[in-house]
Amino acid sequence: MSESLTPEQITSAIHEMGRLAKRASYALATLSADQKNAILRAMAEGLRDATDSIVAANVLDISAGEENELSAAMLDRLRLDASRIEAIASGIEQVASLADPVGDLISEWDRPNGIHIQQVRVPIGVIGIIFESRPNVTSDAAVLCLKSGNATILRGGKEAIHSNRAIAHALQSAGETAGLPEGAIQLIPFTDRESVSVLAQMDQFLDLIIPRGGKGLVEAVVSQARMPVIKHYDGICHTYIHPDADRNMARKIVVDAKTQKPSVCNALETLLVHQDIAAQFLPEVAESLRTKSVEIRGCERTRSHIDAIPATDADWDTEYLDTILAIRVVDSIEDAISHINAHSSQHSECIITEDSSVASRFMRELDSACVFHNVSTRFADGEEFGFGAEIGISTDKLHARGPMALKELTSYQYRITGDGQTKS
Amino acid sequence: MSESLTPEQITSAIHEMGRLAKRASYALATLSADQKNAILRAMAEGLRDATDSIVAANVLDISAGEENELSAAMLDRLRLDASRIEAIASGIEQVASLADPVGDLISEWDRPNGIHIQQVRVPIGVIGIIFESRPNVTSDAAVLCLKSGNATILRGGKEAIHSNRAIAHALQSAGETAGLPEGAIQLIPFTDRESVSVLAQMDQFLDLIIPRGGKGLVEAVVSQARMPVIKHYDGICHTYIHPDADRNMARKIVVDAKTQKPSVCNALETLLVHQDIAAQFLPEVAESLRTKSVEIRGCERTRSHIDAIPATDADWDTEYLDTILAIRVVDSIEDAISHINAHSSQHSECIITEDSSVASRFMRELDSACVFHNVSTRFADGEEFGFGAEIGISTDKLHARGPMALKELTSYQYRITGDGQTKS
Repeated sequence: MSESLTPEQITSAIHEMGRLAKRASYALATLSADQKNAILRAMAEGLRDATDSIVAANVLDISAGEENELSAAMLDRLRLDASRIEAIASGIEQVASLADPVGDLISEWDRPNGIHIQQVRVPIGVIGIIFESRPNVTSDAAVLCLKSGNATILRGGKEAIHSNRAIAHALQSAGETAGLPEGAIQLIPFTDRESVSVLAQMDQFLDLIIPRGGKGLVEAVVSQARMPVIKHYDGICHTYIHPDADRNMARKIVVDAKTQKPSVCNALETLLVHQDIAAQFLPEVAESLRTKSVEIRGCERTRSHIDAIPATDADWDTEYLDTILAIRVVDSIEDAISHINAHSSQHSECIITEDSSVASRFMRELDSACVFHNVSTRFADGEEFGFGAEIGISTDKLHARGPMALKELTSYQYRITGDGQTKS
Repeated sequence: MSESLTPEQITSAIHEMGRLAKRASYALATLSADQKNAILRAMAEGLRDATDSIVAANVLDISAGEENELSAAMLDRLRLDASRIEAIASGIEQVASLADPVGDLISEWDRPNGIHIQQVRVPIGVIGIIFESRPNVTSDAAVLCLKSGNATILRGGKEAIHSNRAIAHALQSAGETAGLPEGAIQLIPFTDRESVSVLAQMDQFLDLIIPRGGKGLVEAVVSQARMPVIKHYDGICHTYIHPDADRNMARKIVVDAKTQKPSVCNALETLLVHQDIAAQFLPEVAESLRTKSVEIRGCERTRSHIDAIPATDADWDTEYLDTILAIRVVDSIEDAISHINAHSSQHSECIITEDSSVASRFMRELDSACVFHNVSTRFADGEEFGFGAEIGISTDKLHARGPMALKELTSYQYRITGDGQTKS
């Protein structure tokens, strides 16, 4: 299909989707929570009913993936079966059960001239979401946006295009029967590269763009986008061990943060150990890490206490996403803070100390989204925070920072009431 | 000075400012409200002490402006004298007296596993501000950023470069004596065009960029920026008169919103009148507007009731910033809402009605930052909202929408405390 489209046709097709989405966004903004929840439940049912056709579409993606020699891990992420489709459908019902943030009164006050000002939560409008292989994102992202009153334009990767189309079709047809405005959820039906550029520049229709995927994708969106971008680059997370730390707790948290799931963004990548506790702590933690087959790369002082591969400068800036840990001995908490502010990706950091005033200082002086005291960084997560559902983790500092859920998919509006006030 | 700089030298000089600002931002984030206020008061005094040298520098800008045949209005905006410098200094003291948002607890909660989560207000970091002729912005913007714990890199227009340098120098030297970190307030000392591009792409150091000026400047920043942009495009503001409106109140509000200060972004540009009240209301409002010399451009139905120049399609999308008003008769409130959502710049709109449920619907269905019921749109302003000081009005929907003050110059950080929680 896409082979036959000229750049002009791609642009005009995506602009038409933008126009439709903008129109749908006005209708969505006025739906009640009950109306949106009824649509969501209908969409969950529609997805279940479409299990056979979604699996059939997925088979096409899997065959193409095998032909293109995708890795086993990628093929697994791509694969859909009845139980995975059921999980997506239950996810939709879970979102239906969450509180609707739209209409919430954020604050209100009176002015001396008698005007009354309310700051009210409203949807953002139209959100573009660009993602890579996992087809479940088609549903997860569209559903969170719908719950928060936003229209979405989705652009998935070519590996999952058949699955994405089948899922989007099931959501749209079941949703529209239940009152989903036309154009509220749209999937770009082709995967030409130009479609990313066209979306990123379509600020007349798109209020926000969220790229979800590898650095190349995020970079391409950031450099071209004319509208706000919420993104997630690296997770280079640190844990710092203060001299007064409970060494047993420190060891358990380090092992958990590094090994419980090394492939995720909130896993530990660099351990900083105060020089006054290094001689005792490093051998203990090294032993525990070795039983989990973790490769240790250490600074010179680390290597005076334990066996380790010499760390290079590049190690301090690397997100391994693997069972590798960089360790550095530092002179002081100041040094730990400087190291982290210089090398961290501002995602999540942790201090292990028994002194809460030391912990407060560490938190205050770090420029990171999440700072933990005596807790594994693996808890930097929307579900662990109690948000019910998460659209991602933002390493940006504006609008949404850290785990991002329904509230972060809203904006606000000032509503001002008076009885004829003028400036004259 | 600037003539001798190569693009590489400009890039390297601005990157060096970025590095310094980033370092300063860490120091700023740890200053207490008292420390920041003491610095601000010292800066106000320093500015007063430097009155002579600032006026002398301003004379150079004014002469250059006269040579370049700037308009009288532009020369007036550029001019500084002792009383204007005193006003800038008092403005700094007023900012010192405002509450410091940094450190505010936005929310906190416990999780079933015993971790405690706090969401705390923190500075954004380093903010780039690009502005045009008014030299007072050098102080106003730097001071609001400092109060909220942010470092600033300022880039002013070439018309005011001597004045801007003198003001920045006075602020820096008085501030540093009182504890302002080096690099916390920096002005790019040259005005080459490349400096805008370099700033907009310097996302390794800059967390936010705010362009303040004409559409060309904002457009240039939006198309090049790699970091979040908070901007202000047009103010195409509407007022809609519902059939049940108090006609006297409606007339006063329309005249105020159009004529009290026509050159500002929250002034009225398009009046929408319901057909059922048009025959009575239009002659009344037209008479009042004519006494204020307002030119009326009307749709055909408007012209059946009053004398008016025929409005063209372009009128509905024009920000006049002048004593010109476009008037359209609409069939219904639905038509008014559609017209506004299609033509407004999402800044400020108003409805005049005695029915608060009609007003609620109007507000809910409009996609604008500020919606007014029986109040002039001229109140869309940080000072009128009680914010104490305003850095501008955002027509964006993310992070900051509408009048933008100290709170909108902050981000947040999650601080999570536990006693050894792990995921394993």
